[in-house]
Amino acid sequence: MTTRPRGFIVVTGSELVRGERRDLNGPFLANELLRHGVEPARISIVGDREEELSDALAQALGAAELCVVSGGLGPTHDDRTVELVARAARVGLVLEEGLHEEIGGISRGFAERLGRPYVDFEAGVRKQATIPEGAHSLGLAGTAPGLVLEHGDTVVVVLPGPPAELQRLWAKALETEPVRRVLTRAQPPELRRLRFFGTSESAVAKALADAGGDGDGVETTICARDFEIHVDLVVEPGAEARADELTERLVSPLERYLFSRDERPIEALVLDLCRGRGLTLGTAESCTGGMVAERLTSVRGSSEVFIGAVVAYADEIKIRELGVPPDVLSRHGAVSAETAAAMATGARERLGADVAVAVTGIAGPDGGSEEKPVGLVFLHVEGPGGSRSADFVFPGDRGSVRRRAAMTALHLIRRLLEQTRDESA
Amino acid sequence: MTTRPRGFIVVTGSELVRGERRDLNGPFLANELLRHGVEPARISIVGDREEELSDALAQALGAAELCVVSGGLGPTHDDRTVELVARAARVGLVLEEGLHEEIGGISRGFAERLGRPYVDFEAGVRKQATIPEGAHSLGLAGTAPGLVLEHGDTVVVVLPGPPAELQRLWAKALETEPVRRVLTRAQPPELRRLRFFGTSESAVAKALADAGGDGDGVETTICARDFEIHVDLVVEPGAEARADELTERLVSPLERYLFSRDERPIEALVLDLCRGRGLTLGTAESCTGGMVAERLTSVRGSSEVFIGAVVAYADEIKIRELGVPPDVLSRHGAVSAETAAAMATGARERLGADVAVAVTGIAGPDGGSEEKPVGLVFLHVEGPGGSRSADFVFPGDRGSVRRRAAMTALHLIRRLLEQTRDESA
Repeated sequence: MTTRPRGFIVVTGSELVRGERRDLNGPFLANELLRHGVEPARISIVGDREEELSDALAQALGAAELCVVSGGLGPTHDDRTVELVARAARVGLVLEEGLHEEIGGISRGFAERLGRPYVDFEAGVRKQATIPEGAHSLGLAGTAPGLVLEHGDTVVVVLPGPPAELQRLWAKALETEPVRRVLTRAQPPELRRLRFFGTSESAVAKALADAGGDGDGVETTICARDFEIHVDLVVEPGAEARADELTERLVSPLERYLFSRDERPIEALVLDLCRGRGLTLGTAESCTGGMVAERLTSVRGSSEVFIGAVVAYADEIKIRELGVPPDVLSRHGAVSAETAAAMATGARERLGADVAVAVTGIAGPDGGSEEKPVGLVFLHVEGPGGSRSADFVFPGDRGSVRRRAAMTALHLIRRLLEQTRDESA
Repeated sequence: MTTRPRGFIVVTGSELVRGERRDLNGPFLANELLRHGVEPARISIVGDREEELSDALAQALGAAELCVVSGGLGPTHDDRTVELVARAARVGLVLEEGLHEEIGGISRGFAERLGRPYVDFEAGVRKQATIPEGAHSLGLAGTAPGLVLEHGDTVVVVLPGPPAELQRLWAKALETEPVRRVLTRAQPPELRRLRFFGTSESAVAKALADAGGDGDGVETTICARDFEIHVDLVVEPGAEARADELTERLVSPLERYLFSRDERPIEALVLDLCRGRGLTLGTAESCTGGMVAERLTSVRGSSEVFIGAVVAYADEIKIRELGVPPDVLSRHGAVSAETAAAMATGARERLGADVAVAVTGIAGPDGGSEEKPVGLVFLHVEGPGGSRSADFVFPGDRGSVRRRAAMTALHLIRRLLEQTRDESA
């Protein structure tokens, strides 16, 4: 079906292939390739040993129209990417005089600031200014140049490992003639995302199959993320009508769970709903320990809406800072619908927030009982137009229970605001 | 140097190779291989197309002594891992009667609960009960079996994609005879980690080079994580003395920055320091929006120490809930050393916490000025034995400023408690 050019990504780094650090460049580059119409066919993560990197490069150069290599451009002997790319492309290495001068200038500055003789740096400078014959420089990241090289039908882009540097030089690579030539053969697909909340991954999978599923230029993937179900559609040029039809048939049985057709995260949606109605927002959190507030304040400009939170982990704080009546705690317990409601009311009063959400539960692994198991969470949101509550027994470990509780709290705010908006309309 | 058996990891999933979802299985498996003395040589992430997965498997079967494959075991036609592993190993497929019965039983239960005829499931059941000739089942994950298969000098382990299932069946794979045979040839290295705070990655790299660096059975990697610098040592059997010497020479110029020789995250260290001295802990947060509290409460059992937090995003909350004097705010501004100190004092009083840390700053991208730029953060910690304060202009985007501020807050608590411990000793 797809006739997109194939892209291979080769990521090098011992700490990455050993699982000591998570690779961020592979997913970034894969997504970039896809957006530009190149099919990301493989991400290979290898260490800095010659054999592993050579094999991965040789395989990529044979198979891909675009090969992007990340990492291994430093000044020391373990950084062998440039040498091995040249070998895989069967070209020699040349000292590029302009680069030599530029990197030398930067390194002289370093040497001076560190009070060390420049001669200590000279070998590294020569190494970093030495590039495969016929390669073009993309400019420097630190003291290493990004490079573009052509070999047969493959265009190779070599980028530095630090993500910010890689992203900066990738933007430059996109403007070079060899990469543009690959992209003219590429037909960028349209990427769409539908997001659901309150239904299961298998229900969405079934609805998708019933709606006709993949094919005719539309490919879908389903991901569950802390109770949200995301459906990603990759739509080939010309298949827009098929995608519209599939979307309509998918959404129709799941209408009430669909909350977004765009990329804004739920915390941004909640802030926008409040902002649109001139409402301030606060949280009262026990088991989530501040996670709901943290997610809301991760959004730029959240201070226009979000005013504060009380994390009431101990019961005394629930009483003193949120005004939860002691007899509510003693009769119903800290993990109860009544306490959640009292926490939300208290947060509105104490913080002076128009809307407040409260979360109390047992994140585990300790503290559960037969009556109140680990994962039991009560939520309550209260605003000027009314309130909503919910309770769940979330599966999973401590982190998972907390993330799901925080996610559910954000969606509970959304539902309250959407409901009161609908009612007032 | 190393004579460890080589391990290849093949991860399959369209959403992974396209960067729509981050792969968790590759890093988990790589770390497991390393711990068991198998050198993780490559992680290949491929989609579910036949060509990509076949190529990756063929390369792994030629090169690795242990090949672990994750994903693609579902009941539908896109899940082709088993078929392609059989083809790569040049063996046929057989319906395994025991599995057929077991998976059939589970699927009959599903069918009944869903009110659908079992015949809808039969094709999927047969597919999932069909395995390569000579493969052993590791037991089921959902309705898919994990598998172990031998091909020439390579042992292939096939595991399901969902991380929890993969981890469960990986533990079983470790007990099988073919995998054990590979591991008897493996010499597990000792893994050590040193963590520093308050120094730079390049200073640690220089100290490491001055200390002798890699070689003679010790390999090191340096990672910077939100201002912590982690040095991982992989120590071959017999190289322990060399590792001790390297460690001593590395640590000696950096002694005051070394805070840990074990795996506990800083939030757990802080909680343990408080617990050991019977102190309760709270936070007062502005720009971090609850992140410090969230990190502390991510630790199991934190409720013994951590009692609560006030997230005071708006100035009224700083005044009303933390008792920050309005004239401190008007004279020095919300982002100032004076406000940070008043927030910490207020949190101790209002929350009744023995130790409280306060953070106030400009996370950006808006809100900066020439005098107070984006990234400017003031921190203050106060306890029964005294107080400490700090201020920084953190580089990076909003998320990075917040993470670094939260990390620094945790280390500031640690330093206060270590200092007062040392002074009282």
